[in-house]
Amino acid sequence: MRILILGGDGYLGWPTAMRFSSQGHEVSVVDNFSRRRWHHEHSTDSLTPIASLAERVEAWHEHTRNDIRSFVGDIEDGEFIDAVVAETLPETVIHYGEQPSAPFSMMSRRNAVLTQYTNVIGTLNLLFSMRDRVPDCHLVKLGTMGEYGTPNIDIEEGFIEIEHNGRSDTLPFPKQPGSLYHLSKVHDSHNIHFACRIWGLRSTDLNQGVVYGVETDETVRDERLATRFDYDEVFGTVLNRFCLQAVIGHPLTVYGEGGQTRGFLNIRDTLQCVELAVANPPELGEYRVFNQFTEQFTVAELAELVKRSASEVGYDVSVRTYPNPRVELERHYYNATNTKLRDLGLEPHLLGEELVHSMLKTIEDHKDRVIEGAIAPRTRWKPGELEGAPVSEPAK
Amino acid sequence: MRILILGGDGYLGWPTAMRFSSQGHEVSVVDNFSRRRWHHEHSTDSLTPIASLAERVEAWHEHTRNDIRSFVGDIEDGEFIDAVVAETLPETVIHYGEQPSAPFSMMSRRNAVLTQYTNVIGTLNLLFSMRDRVPDCHLVKLGTMGEYGTPNIDIEEGFIEIEHNGRSDTLPFPKQPGSLYHLSKVHDSHNIHFACRIWGLRSTDLNQGVVYGVETDETVRDERLATRFDYDEVFGTVLNRFCLQAVIGHPLTVYGEGGQTRGFLNIRDTLQCVELAVANPPELGEYRVFNQFTEQFTVAELAELVKRSASEVGYDVSVRTYPNPRVELERHYYNATNTKLRDLGLEPHLLGEELVHSMLKTIEDHKDRVIEGAIAPRTRWKPGELEGAPVSEPAK
Repeated sequence: MRILILGGDGYLGWPTAMRFSSQGHEVSVVDNFSRRRWHHEHSTDSLTPIASLAERVEAWHEHTRNDIRSFVGDIEDGEFIDAVVAETLPETVIHYGEQPSAPFSMMSRRNAVLTQYTNVIGTLNLLFSMRDRVPDCHLVKLGTMGEYGTPNIDIEEGFIEIEHNGRSDTLPFPKQPGSLYHLSKVHDSHNIHFACRIWGLRSTDLNQGVVYGVETDETVRDERLATRFDYDEVFGTVLNRFCLQAVIGHPLTVYGEGGQTRGFLNIRDTLQCVELAVANPPELGEYRVFNQFTEQFTVAELAELVKRSASEVGYDVSVRTYPNPRVELERHYYNATNTKLRDLGLEPHLLGEELVHSMLKTIEDHKDRVIEGAIAPRTRWKPGELEGAPVSEPAK
Repeated sequence: MRILILGGDGYLGWPTAMRFSSQGHEVSVVDNFSRRRWHHEHSTDSLTPIASLAERVEAWHEHTRNDIRSFVGDIEDGEFIDAVVAETLPETVIHYGEQPSAPFSMMSRRNAVLTQYTNVIGTLNLLFSMRDRVPDCHLVKLGTMGEYGTPNIDIEEGFIEIEHNGRSDTLPFPKQPGSLYHLSKVHDSHNIHFACRIWGLRSTDLNQGVVYGVETDETVRDERLATRFDYDEVFGTVLNRFCLQAVIGHPLTVYGEGGQTRGFLNIRDTLQCVELAVANPPELGEYRVFNQFTEQFTVAELAELVKRSASEVGYDVSVRTYPNPRVELERHYYNATNTKLRDLGLEPHLLGEELVHSMLKTIEDHKDRVIEGAIAPRTRWKPGELEGAPVSEPAK
């Protein structure tokens, strides 16, 4: 199958590219290296040293004799993405090519605009190219569980049947996202749903939970094939951050009460979910949503798990409460459905001490690369809100 | 009160500016003349000759001795709108400053991107300026009834209480809009709701129906104070178009079965609604939605009304069915709530033959300015869909 992966140089994009290439698919990747650039701007970096895209592609070829084609450019540039689609004629597009950080989007007007512009306009350009060049192509789009926010009712997969005044309809699940980044994904979802309804495209919107882990079957084959591991306050996700903090003796950074509940999944399961979506495409004109996570945890539960697991291998871990830089409920009802991917055959890698031990080990190998100043939360959802409430800094 | 009106040179913006100025408010307007420019690009024009913004402001001053300040620029330019907000320190912002046409947004990728960029990024810039400069200011934002689409349940005003698996919550009403323009307004609504939830701004989102009419108490005072009247397939609204078609002997352009039901209101009631919203602001942190229309009609009912009314004053009117260039249901359930503005005191000008007669009269005065080639529907929601199904052209 001809597969085009947008954001193919990223944390998930690169492992996804290798996975499909390893199965004999004809894989092309698009990236503009924005994540590498944003790290430069913030003087942060991936914990794992990562090769350039060209080096990655070459190393992959050495190991497998398979070619991954790469295209460098911005999907916000409609002519660029249109040329790539025309050149590669994909049967599946897997779209990770977006600004992926909530704190990044909340830093400034510039970043908020950049996030919504990159994500919404980029995806809109893609939809036009698909309509005009490859109308049968299946768009697998990475959304986020954060689109839903934390409603007081069970979260369904994309749609909900509503009875009202004696009539009923199945309608898009109402969204109340928690950042301007999450909003950009809500906007995308609405635009993609429209393209399916009106133009007859087909798409699977994967509302993904928080991903953890750094290893897949392919990344471990060669250090040049490693994927990035972000632990900074902007691009790092919570479990990855906690594991790194445990290794370097930084208190675990729990925001507020730590009662925030979210869906989580292992990076290996991200690949499995995307494979299942690709192997089981929707009908033309269908827009479907899968909630892509395997387990729900509170932030406090994750901190406890990391503390316990790290203690077993000799780390002395403390947990510190930081004034919450985000505006969010710290205790709330949360119960999200996630049966559709299970029904397609997903076999989850559940989170346990074993996974934490393996992450700690990977982190130890690169401990000398940690930039400690990048860890404490600084980006505030409401500027001025925390002035006078100093963030407790860890002892150096 | 200091009032800033975005899109203050437009069909509704200019009459709104005069209304508030006539009441002694300190009014400033922002416009980038995009509507005038887009008409140039399509070789179309307002039926009514309209003065330049500078001439309008001067004529208004002659009549009232009141000054309306004007700022020329794009709200997509964050620094421009921030400077305007800093300079004028508005207590109320009335935001009409968006690309307002569904067909325009469906013409091409360029126009779709332009629409979502202008509308979403423009509003996002405004929200940041309000947060940082005038956090107590009331944002009155023009949305559209088209955000809801045509669900099979009653349409509520912005929010709906949902019971699900034994729990309940009041959540944003699910949206299934019918064009990329309407989607841009859905995106705006989500961003504005967020700004109220997270930053504590306050806003009234006016989900307006289809506006008809051309005269307000202020526009009739001097021909230099007239507002624009669009009748072309891109910017014209249905009743205005039908009235003009009746006068020039063009068959009324009913799309498909004509069973499409929508909410409508008189331009005089647009002003009344905006005045009521401004006079009764929400609390800080509140995001409220009013459905702003006074009556529901099907397109076929409007065609019948215009035919009957025009016949009475001597016009021979025919109705012709055009293959529907849009992708929409031509028969559907439609019942939308609109009690909140009534509760604040709205006294509707209902649609009847008298109003149609008065519109016909205005149109007769400018009949020689009609550009007939701009009338027939050409913009298709699904390119290629109607090939081979020639649009029946009226006899010249």
